[in-house]
Amino acid sequence: MIPKSHPRYLSLMTRELIVEGVRNGITSTQGLIAQGRGEAFDYLIGEKSTDSALAAEKIAAAQLLLAKRPVISVNGNVAALVPAEIIKLGEIVNAPLEVNLFHRTEDRVDKIIKHLHSLGARNLCVKSDALIPGIDHERAKVDSDGILRADVVLVPLEDGDRCKALVDMGKTVIAIDLNPLSRTAQCATVTIVDNIIRAVPNISKFAGELKGLRKEELRKTVRGYDNKETLCNAIYEIKMNFESFSCQSLYIPPII
Amino acid sequence: MIPKSHPRYLSLMTRELIVEGVRNGITSTQGLIAQGRGEAFDYLIGEKSTDSALAAEKIAAAQLLLAKRPVISVNGNVAALVPAEIIKLGEIVNAPLEVNLFHRTEDRVDKIIKHLHSLGARNLCVKSDALIPGIDHERAKVDSDGILRADVVLVPLEDGDRCKALVDMGKTVIAIDLNPLSRTAQCATVTIVDNIIRAVPNISKFAGELKGLRKEELRKTVRGYDNKETLCNAIYEIKMNFESFSCQSLYIPPII
Repeated sequence: MIPKSHPRYLSLMTRELIVEGVRNGITSTQGLIAQGRGEAFDYLIGEKSTDSALAAEKIAAAQLLLAKRPVISVNGNVAALVPAEIIKLGEIVNAPLEVNLFHRTEDRVDKIIKHLHSLGARNLCVKSDALIPGIDHERAKVDSDGILRADVVLVPLEDGDRCKALVDMGKTVIAIDLNPLSRTAQCATVTIVDNIIRAVPNISKFAGELKGLRKEELRKTVRGYDNKETLCNAIYEIKMNFESFSCQSLYIPPII
Repeated sequence: MIPKSHPRYLSLMTRELIVEGVRNGITSTQGLIAQGRGEAFDYLIGEKSTDSALAAEKIAAAQLLLAKRPVISVNGNVAALVPAEIIKLGEIVNAPLEVNLFHRTEDRVDKIIKHLHSLGARNLCVKSDALIPGIDHERAKVDSDGILRADVVLVPLEDGDRCKALVDMGKTVIAIDLNPLSRTAQCATVTIVDNIIRAVPNISKFAGELKGLRKEELRKTVRGYDNKETLCNAIYEIKMNFESFSCQSLYIPPII
C-alpha cells in the first residue's frame, strides 16, 4: 500500500485505479502507457486546473447544455478513473454515455457497460451498428442513435484520427487531453488541457451553474470562443510552470 | 511486427520490451506507466543523448570506477529494457547487481534474478537482510553486503524517497531519470537525464575509455562537478525543444 504521507499520493492512487482497471479487464495495457504519458504532461501543467483549462471546461459545459443530442464517449481509462463522475455529468447535461474504445474488443466493451451499470448509469448507448467514415472498421464502430447522430460529443482521451473524423462529420467535439501539442488537442472544437480526474467534476460544476440560463445566454457564453487561443495559453502555462519549477527547485535564476 | 522503416521504430520496440517484461512477470504493471511518462519526457528532450546527459554519463563512469564498493540497482524496467547492457556495465566497473524494487514481491525479485542469471550475470547481491533507514519496510529491503554498504550506487529509475534516503546515508547516488524536475533527479549526486536504453551503453563506453586512468586522474575528472548545472542544462534543452515543437505544430509565433 502507498502511505498517505507519500508526497505524490494522489498521483500514485490514480495510477492504482488504472492498474485495477487493467486487472478487471476494462482498461487496455496500452492505456497504462497513455496514463504515464498523461502523468508527465499533468506534472508540467502543475497538476492543477489552469485558468485556460477552467475556461475551456466552462465552454464545454455550455456546449453540452446547448446540444440537441449530446453524447459522452467513455473509454477504458475513463471507466477506470472517473466512472461515477462521468455518470453524474451525463445526468446533469442529459447526455447518454457510449463506450467507444481504440483497442476495441467486445469483451472489454461489455465489461465497461456492466461496470457503468453497476455504478448506477441508466442512460447508455450500447449498439455498435454504425461506422464513423474514414476510420478502419473496428475503431469506427459507434451507435447509430449515439455518437453517429450526436451534434456534440465529449471525447475524453481520444485518438487523433478519430477526433478528426468526428470533426469532419460536422460535430462539435470536446476533447480532454493533457498534451496541448497532440493531434487530438489541435483538431478538437474545444480542448480541455487538464487531467480527467479534475476536468470531469469541473465540467459538472459549471454545467450545474449554467443550467438555469436561457439558451440565448448560453449561446453568448460560447460565442467567440477560440480554441487556438486556449492551446496557446496552455502551452504558455506549461512554459511558465517549467520556468518556475526550475527556479524553485534549483534555486537558480531562470534561463533566458 | 513493427516495420524497421517506422519513424518511431525504436520507441515502439522499447515499448514492446516493457510489455513483454510485464508478460514474463519481471516488470510491474506500474512499470508500464513509468514507461509512458518516460516516453513523454524523452520526446521533450528530442529522443537523443543531449550534451549535458553525455557529460553526466562520463562523470557516472568515473564515479563507478573510483568507488570502493559500487553497486548497480536493478528494477523491473531495467531488467526488461537493458538486461544485457547492465550486466556488461557491472563487469566493466566491477560492480555487483542488486535487484531492488519499488513494488516489491519476492516472486518478482526471484524472476529478475533468474532472468539476469540466464543472460550471464555472475555478480549479484541476492540477500534482503537489511533496511534503508527512513523508508517503509518492504521498499527498504536491501542486501547488507550490497546497497547497504555501498559507497556509490547507480539507481536507474529510482523513487524520490529512496533516492533521498540513500543520499542521506552518505552515498554517492547516480540516478538515470528522464524528468529533470523529479525529486530523484534533484536529490541524486549525479543525474543522467537520458533514456536508459542510451544511458547504460554510454556509461559503459565512458568506463571503458576511463578505465586505464590512475585514480588521481579520475578524481580530477569528477572534481568540481555541479549537478545543479547538469539539471539546469537539461531543463534548458527541453525548453528549447518545446519552443520548436509548439511553433511547428500550431503555426503561431513563439510566445515570449
